[in-house]
Amino acid sequence: MTDRRLDVLAIGNAIVDVIADADDAFIAREGMPKGAMRLIDEAEAVRLYEAMGPGREASGGSAANTVAGVASLGLKAAFIGQLADDQLGAIFEHDIRSLGVEFDTKAKSDVGATARCLILVTPDAQRTMNTFLGAAQRLGPDAVDPAQVAAARILYLEGYLWDPEEPRQAMYKAMDAAREAGTKVAFTLSDGFVVDRHRADLMRLLDERRIDILFANQVEAESLAEQSDVESAVAALKDKVETLVVTRHEHGALAVRSGERADVPAERIEKLVDTTGAGDLFAGGFLAGEARGLPLRQSLKLGAICAAEVIQHYGARPEADLRALAGDLLA
Amino acid sequence: MTDRRLDVLAIGNAIVDVIADADDAFIAREGMPKGAMRLIDEAEAVRLYEAMGPGREASGGSAANTVAGVASLGLKAAFIGQLADDQLGAIFEHDIRSLGVEFDTKAKSDVGATARCLILVTPDAQRTMNTFLGAAQRLGPDAVDPAQVAAARILYLEGYLWDPEEPRQAMYKAMDAAREAGTKVAFTLSDGFVVDRHRADLMRLLDERRIDILFANQVEAESLAEQSDVESAVAALKDKVETLVVTRHEHGALAVRSGERADVPAERIEKLVDTTGAGDLFAGGFLAGEARGLPLRQSLKLGAICAAEVIQHYGARPEADLRALAGDLLA
Repeated sequence: MTDRRLDVLAIGNAIVDVIADADDAFIAREGMPKGAMRLIDEAEAVRLYEAMGPGREASGGSAANTVAGVASLGLKAAFIGQLADDQLGAIFEHDIRSLGVEFDTKAKSDVGATARCLILVTPDAQRTMNTFLGAAQRLGPDAVDPAQVAAARILYLEGYLWDPEEPRQAMYKAMDAAREAGTKVAFTLSDGFVVDRHRADLMRLLDERRIDILFANQVEAESLAEQSDVESAVAALKDKVETLVVTRHEHGALAVRSGERADVPAERIEKLVDTTGAGDLFAGGFLAGEARGLPLRQSLKLGAICAAEVIQHYGARPEADLRALAGDLLA
Repeated sequence: MTDRRLDVLAIGNAIVDVIADADDAFIAREGMPKGAMRLIDEAEAVRLYEAMGPGREASGGSAANTVAGVASLGLKAAFIGQLADDQLGAIFEHDIRSLGVEFDTKAKSDVGATARCLILVTPDAQRTMNTFLGAAQRLGPDAVDPAQVAAARILYLEGYLWDPEEPRQAMYKAMDAAREAGTKVAFTLSDGFVVDRHRADLMRLLDERRIDILFANQVEAESLAEQSDVESAVAALKDKVETLVVTRHEHGALAVRSGERADVPAERIEKLVDTTGAGDLFAGGFLAGEARGLPLRQSLKLGAICAAEVIQHYGARPEADLRALAGDLLA
């Protein structure tokens, strides 16, 4: 049995979030898909930034938020993501390391600027995201160390990174190393646009049994399975992957593993502030449960607890001690 | 009568705040003066940043926070402060302009990095600040345009900037232009260390009647007057300045002008989160009242309303619409 010094190793976009309040009229005027993420180029990033209100900056990135959750739960996590050698890159590096997450990807000076996500939070707490990928999309296979993959119980891959070419090659390399080492491979579909652009490719990954744990929200699951309701999507996907996890916003989440199914409701919250990071933190909680070998229902419950924490404040990383919130579940 | 297109023109440190949670043990171990500000050099800024937890970044700077408040109240404000030509500088510039504040100081590439303030917030909501001044202390007299000073009803000067040499010369130039144009000069003592280092110099400014409105918190007032209680300090200072304003944290604030005195209590708050910016926003509310020619008590009340808003969330700039909170006071 390999020594697993890491519970979760994630590969994702290394992004600094810029969070600003916006009203619905602004979202509509800009023609943004509300509640979703879209990729923008540098010129659009500059133009949009000038048009938006004052921002609050904090490290983000979907899979990076997930490992922040894993670390806050007291488990060992590592992250791979490409930064530029600039101030935003230094902020990202500081933040993720200060959470106790192992992060050794070397920042580069020839990859453009560090990625940023301009997040507009509307009064209904929904976030509409505009991502300038910059350096993050220049993550290459050289950033993946097979020995690190082999040291992890779970490898977690961010679907957003399936879009650019170089990171896709990096993720293939990591999946190969995981298969070799017996590391479980988890993958999140991330967003409807990822599914739309790469449906055949993603189905092929499932058919080749390269993915052990698949995360999707309801819309992504329906889109991937080309079904119009969640139960049909679950039925279509559940035999293609060892563990299927589908999140359903305020309706909770469900998981199916080898014929076993579990459903959990969303946790009660006091005040919904900003839904940024909800799915990321759900995945963090679930993966922590999986790494500890918890029953399916308890892993889902951990996911729901972590998601509930992050949506009650601005920003996509936990502020409370998630380990304390998890209580007996991880005792 | 000069045309006053600006209500308040402020000169201060252009700083990006980096806010992180910390416990009392960390503050003690670092030997920081809890609740106060201290200046640190670049090496110490790097070391401390590595030791602290994950941060949230937001534009700050004392006088800049004040004009953010003035703008949020619906008045016209402008700011002068030195940035470096880097990513943090771009963030500061974006944020202050997006508030509608006029800001034309050109960022420079030969002044080090943009200033940052590492703010540690303890569970009691107190903030302990560690400021690396960087580019901000390189603000020179060339950044001050006498025509802009003349266009303002009130010139507001940040005491923190009295410490480095170049900005002090810039503030002298601005005070001269203000006297020429009949612009009122307001000055905040900013911090006990400013008073300790420059007591004689500050008293001379008062004796020369260069300052029309003096802001001090209780400790700063007592220190400047070398008195051990606030009433003795007020008695010693009130005839040296047209308007004296003394803030007293949860005990409210008082002002004395030409023999008239007003006292107001602190506004009631729901939850104290982070006291960063309390004094800055108090000054913003008070100056807005002054610019509109309100009675002394109403200006104090505006200050108390603005301070109450900013201490109920993280960060030193208003998140709510202060104009709405001010209600009839500015109608």
